[in-house]
Amino acid sequence: MASFDTNRIATAAQNVRDKHPLTHCITNYVTVNDCANAVLAIGASPIMGDEPEDVAQIQRICGGLDVNIGTLTKSVVEGMHAASKVATQLSHPLLLDPVGAGASDIRTRTACSIIDEAHVWVVRGNMSEIKALAGAAASTRGVDVSPDDKVSEQNLGRSAEFVRQAASKLGCILAVTGAIDLISDGTRVVAVRNGAPLMGCITGSGCMLSATTTSFLAANTDDPFGATVASVVSMGAAGEVAASRMRPLDGNGSFRTYLLDALYNQTPESVSGAARAEEL
Amino acid sequence: MASFDTNRIATAAQNVRDKHPLTHCITNYVTVNDCANAVLAIGASPIMGDEPEDVAQIQRICGGLDVNIGTLTKSVVEGMHAASKVATQLSHPLLLDPVGAGASDIRTRTACSIIDEAHVWVVRGNMSEIKALAGAAASTRGVDVSPDDKVSEQNLGRSAEFVRQAASKLGCILAVTGAIDLISDGTRVVAVRNGAPLMGCITGSGCMLSATTTSFLAANTDDPFGATVASVVSMGAAGEVAASRMRPLDGNGSFRTYLLDALYNQTPESVSGAARAEEL
Amino acid sequence: MASFDTNRIATAAQNVRDKHPLTHCITNYVTVNDCANAVLAIGASPIMGDEPEDVAQIQRICGGLDVNIGTLTKSVVEGMHAASKVATQLSHPLLLDPVGAGASDIRTRTACSIIDEAHVWVVRGNMSEIKALAGAAASTRGVDVSPDDKVSEQNLGRSAEFVRQAASKLGCILAVTGAIDLISDGTRVVAVRNGAPLMGCITGSGCMLSATTTSFLAANTDDPFGATVASVVSMGAAGEVAASRMRPLDGNGSFRTYLLDALYNQTPESVSGAARAEEL
Repeated sequence: MASFDTNRIATAAQNVRDKHPLTHCITNYVTVNDCANAVLAIGASPIMGDEPEDVAQIQRICGGLDVNIGTLTKSVVEGMHAASKVATQLSHPLLLDPVGAGASDIRTRTACSIIDEAHVWVVRGNMSEIKALAGAAASTRGVDVSPDDKVSEQNLGRSAEFVRQAASKLGCILAVTGAIDLISDGTRVVAVRNGAPLMGCITGSGCMLSATTTSFLAANTDDPFGATVASVVSMGAAGEVAASRMRPLDGNGSFRTYLLDALYNQTPESVSGAARAEEL
Repeated sequence: MASFDTNRIATAAQNVRDKHPLTHCITNYVTVNDCANAVLAIGASPIMGDEPEDVAQIQRICGGLDVNIGTLTKSVVEGMHAASKVATQLSHPLLLDPVGAGASDIRTRTACSIIDEAHVWVVRGNMSEIKALAGAAASTRGVDVSPDDKVSEQNLGRSAEFVRQAASKLGCILAVTGAIDLISDGTRVVAVRNGAPLMGCITGSGCMLSATTTSFLAANTDDPFGATVASVVSMGAAGEVAASRMRPLDGNGSFRTYLLDALYNQTPESVSGAARAEEL
Repeated sequence: MASFDTNRIATAAQNVRDKHPLTHCITNYVTVNDCANAVLAIGASPIMGDEPEDVAQIQRICGGLDVNIGTLTKSVVEGMHAASKVATQLSHPLLLDPVGAGASDIRTRTACSIIDEAHVWVVRGNMSEIKALAGAAASTRGVDVSPDDKVSEQNLGRSAEFVRQAASKLGCILAVTGAIDLISDGTRVVAVRNGAPLMGCITGSGCMLSATTTSFLAANTDDPFGATVASVVSMGAAGEVAASRMRPLDGNGSFRTYLLDALYNQTPESVSGAARAEEL
């Protein structure tokens, strides 16, 4: 087990700041504002738009596409397919966040069909969602990970092997986030131990990570694996800084603000310096 | 006039933390993020979803349903009906927030038809909205209460009697919130004097209360009246703590953050200890 | 070059507080919460609603209409047209925010058709969006202004003349905001130098300005030009106060909160006293 190359992390973060890629997010209406501010915080630029007639032209001027199925409507699903098609044609990075996959047919079906039809570079979700996509026995509890599916030091080896096989089966990079994050491209597996428990007490920490990871990918098309690891480290490190700012009367309202603040104040050096990313 | 049993309040709040019920919110896109964070703050778990094809399966894995008509579309209305039907079949607590009822036909009609068709446990709104639903002469001012409809110490007896009769007529618990909150099941009426004027200076304090009350109901299906009073007290007490944190340059932006923080830091004991709830 | 009359600014801000106009916003789901809180902060009252069946009745009880095309769907576009028609019939102030005009056909077409069909009082956007509407060569970069289109001290005279001609051509007041804001009714041009660079690091500062300007217009139907200048000054002055509160660990999360706070704490005197508005 070796540390993941911190230079790759710093380079990936620097590229976001240098290229500030326009990032197209088709994402749920619950956390969309946080996603936009998170993308701005890391030095990229967000644009939202889900109307089928709008998405192709928007995607053409963007550098990447974030598809988050947290609140689907039939029209949004149509927009996701149309945008994914253009992203694939243009070889733009496409990230899928399968929020609640396994909890309802339309969510599972939409996520699976995008994986089938488009070139998905990264799927980012919790373990229950990934299990649902990989056809494993999953027990999705709405948008939360099921207690049985949580990655821990005890089940790390087994979890990492599952993620590696699922990445291989799905043909993309998987970023399975939780107390310990696992990133795999089907061959390598990296465990990231950055983060803070408070990230689970706000809505949107996962959605924000999906949006910022899309920006990282758009700025680092030559190293999508490194970009994904860097983005996961970036969000986790921001969570740690945010948690350290908590004062007695603060709660999840303040934590949400501090998390964006921490992303905003990161430098490539602070991200790579905070990394606790290990190749398994 | 006697104080409402503080043990019931503490028990209701404890049950939310122990059972952390998955709470399905079909709520407006203006304040949906605050609703999700408020539900998380009190120890429950939110899931949003309004697509007619999605809502039945989502409701089945949840413990309650919050229907908030703040921003309707035809598809959302269809989703509300479908979800309400399932909640009724499964005897899940269903709360209706009739935002802007009386201000437009589609709002009034949607609210009334859900009351007619489904088993609504609680309706939470301002006095103008409740008057519109009860067929009384109302003068809804958009989503705000009309000045003529405000509950005050002067009109408290008359207002309480109106709320009691309206609850009886509508066949559910009413939670009419304002400077003084009135909760009635058609027999009893409880007045809650917790809260802070600043709660009217942010968007979403009512919507958040509807979402958290749904979680309280889901965790306390054997005492919906106590759960409703406890939730109204919880939000009011949080408003008081939030108001006490305000510093010279703070405004409604900070107040919104402090309100979530205060919910997050509540304990069953702090809620019951702060209660100013009185049986009329 | 003379300072813009500060009494007009103070009067316009006072009128918002005295009349607290109900302001109908059909605005994108990304920043809608911030728009609602900004409208509340300045002393007005927001109501959102985009369903075609809902908007006519909502607009009738309101004092003005904000149409923001940041996230269009076919249904929302229909709602915008229906609401704009009613606003025009009732001589209600109508403000258009052409987010991303020039970036996709549906955005450009929707913005242009509302200008054609309805009585638009004010268009507020960045220079790239305004150029797209005015038929000039624009290079919209998504929802951001193109670097080539930025107003600076160097190109101020040329930019002002362009805005004046575009206002004349479009037949409405233009508020083109950026590092220097330019407001013109086709005859006069006012430059506003209030604001802070951090306003570009959050999502929604433009959308919030469109919403609050609609409230300013609704409270000042006899002086739409003064109301527009006053509103632009108000938001810029709030940005300055917010920037002055930034502490070492603060970022765009805190700035967003401080911006709302600053709007909330403004007085007509503080707004007019902070004005750096100059007739060119």
